[in-house]
Amino acid sequence: MQLQSIEHHKAFGGHWQRYRHDSEACQCEMKFSVFLPSGVEQGKSHALPVIFWLSGLTCTDENFVQKSFAEAAAAEAGLILVVPDTSPRGCDIEGEEESYDLGTGAGFYLDASEEPWAAHYRMESYIASELYDTVMAAFPVDHNRVGLMGHSMGGHGALTLGLKYPEKFHSVSVFSPICNPSAVPWGKKAFTAYLGHDKGHWKRHDACELIENGARLPHLLVDQGMDDEFLASQLMPEALDTVCRNAGIPLDLRRHSGYDHSYFFIRSFIADHIRYHQSRWSV
Amino acid sequence: MQLQSIEHHKAFGGHWQRYRHDSEACQCEMKFSVFLPSGVEQGKSHALPVIFWLSGLTCTDENFVQKSFAEAAAAEAGLILVVPDTSPRGCDIEGEEESYDLGTGAGFYLDASEEPWAAHYRMESYIASELYDTVMAAFPVDHNRVGLMGHSMGGHGALTLGLKYPEKFHSVSVFSPICNPSAVPWGKKAFTAYLGHDKGHWKRHDACELIENGARLPHLLVDQGMDDEFLASQLMPEALDTVCRNAGIPLDLRRHSGYDHSYFFIRSFIADHIRYHQSRWSV
Repeated sequence: MQLQSIEHHKAFGGHWQRYRHDSEACQCEMKFSVFLPSGVEQGKSHALPVIFWLSGLTCTDENFVQKSFAEAAAAEAGLILVVPDTSPRGCDIEGEEESYDLGTGAGFYLDASEEPWAAHYRMESYIASELYDTVMAAFPVDHNRVGLMGHSMGGHGALTLGLKYPEKFHSVSVFSPICNPSAVPWGKKAFTAYLGHDKGHWKRHDACELIENGARLPHLLVDQGMDDEFLASQLMPEALDTVCRNAGIPLDLRRHSGYDHSYFFIRSFIADHIRYHQSRWSV
Repeated sequence: MQLQSIEHHKAFGGHWQRYRHDSEACQCEMKFSVFLPSGVEQGKSHALPVIFWLSGLTCTDENFVQKSFAEAAAAEAGLILVVPDTSPRGCDIEGEEESYDLGTGAGFYLDASEEPWAAHYRMESYIASELYDTVMAAFPVDHNRVGLMGHSMGGHGALTLGLKYPEKFHSVSVFSPICNPSAVPWGKKAFTAYLGHDKGHWKRHDACELIENGARLPHLLVDQGMDDEFLASQLMPEALDTVCRNAGIPLDLRRHSGYDHSYFFIRSFIADHIRYHQSRWSV
């Protein structure tokens, strides 16, 4: 896959790089950002660990790059960050720009089976195969130390892709995830549009359902702000807590008083998450 | 002055608060943001040091709040950050929205004498008197530990206001400042519009001219990225270096290879600056 560099900024001794490329999975141009810590650009780096970050509704790759401040901890840890977009864009699909929670900016990290979405909205294949393989080939990545993080819709993505591809993603942590999308308005709307009305097809894209049906993670860190405006209506961490307990998945669910759903919450704890992934890789 | 809270986010145990108020200096509504470290909101805080941040062209207070990540270091240091806007807004002045470097977002931290700007564009009075007094009255601030920082146009603002009001601002540090605005396109355009064609009036708003005419700072930290796209044409740190040397002002001018003019540069070194201000207050 041909990567075209379109932006770069030095930060903390390393570089944020932004690329565009033609995506086979999504049949459109996609953009993503990468943070490369000091040394990588001179080609003298040995294989480094990498963490993929999946963003929430309405985001592009730029929200995390601008607001998470994750590169400070990544630079210190000497690891690579990869930040994809949240959906295909500009595919001329009817309705793709009509709402913030469906279509553009709302890919939900799944492969759509329904029209008019099926040809382009294939974010699961894009993230877990196409972009994954691209990153492994293009950057000096240690294939055995690959983490997956996300926020909100991207927390849902990190949970479900982490549960489905444990051979690819060796550690998972999330902020404010949509834990049980089949049961909440955001998930019901997106799953109905992308996957159809048969809820049997939804189960492979719902973290709680996946765990109930046998998928496992060796460990899981979840941070949740208790002043999050979407906590009760869309996120449902208690559902995840229950299924993890029943399944014997060690879940560290941290409830943070006073924090909301924003990047101010994420950046207050992102360094913790990066250290968490490091600790999991050394287990 | 009546402050109305319009937004708040918990971050690093403290809070970013955003306020609006009716400004007497600018004769319009103004907004600003404040970071209050942990403990202040419970009213149990003793007087804390404060640093004012002055932003560059096109910014509101939100750019620094979203992108600087300064609250991490401020939380650790236990100090307050104050982030004003860069100009009056919405004053129905002809031409105020026409260009990025004049009018809205481009107040240049001076009191305009020329029409149509003179009634509203009074950012020097706003920052150094009205907002300064407001902050001293509204928050638990130690009046003897007050720092001033800024970037680009805001670096020019921090230098000139720091030189003119040493009794109010006890330490000054800047990123990528417009050091000699009288000699560069941004400054010439703004000064001509706000101050008129008589360059004698420009001298009180140009850091190099102020120093040549006797103004002093006890010490100064300047960070400059060497891949800054405005370095040669607009910023001229060498001019500042020369006048500081001639005046005996101890200047720590740090040139950083590979860094550009963006907030990625600022946030890579903002913690250094906060520690610098702390060290100056204990001299």
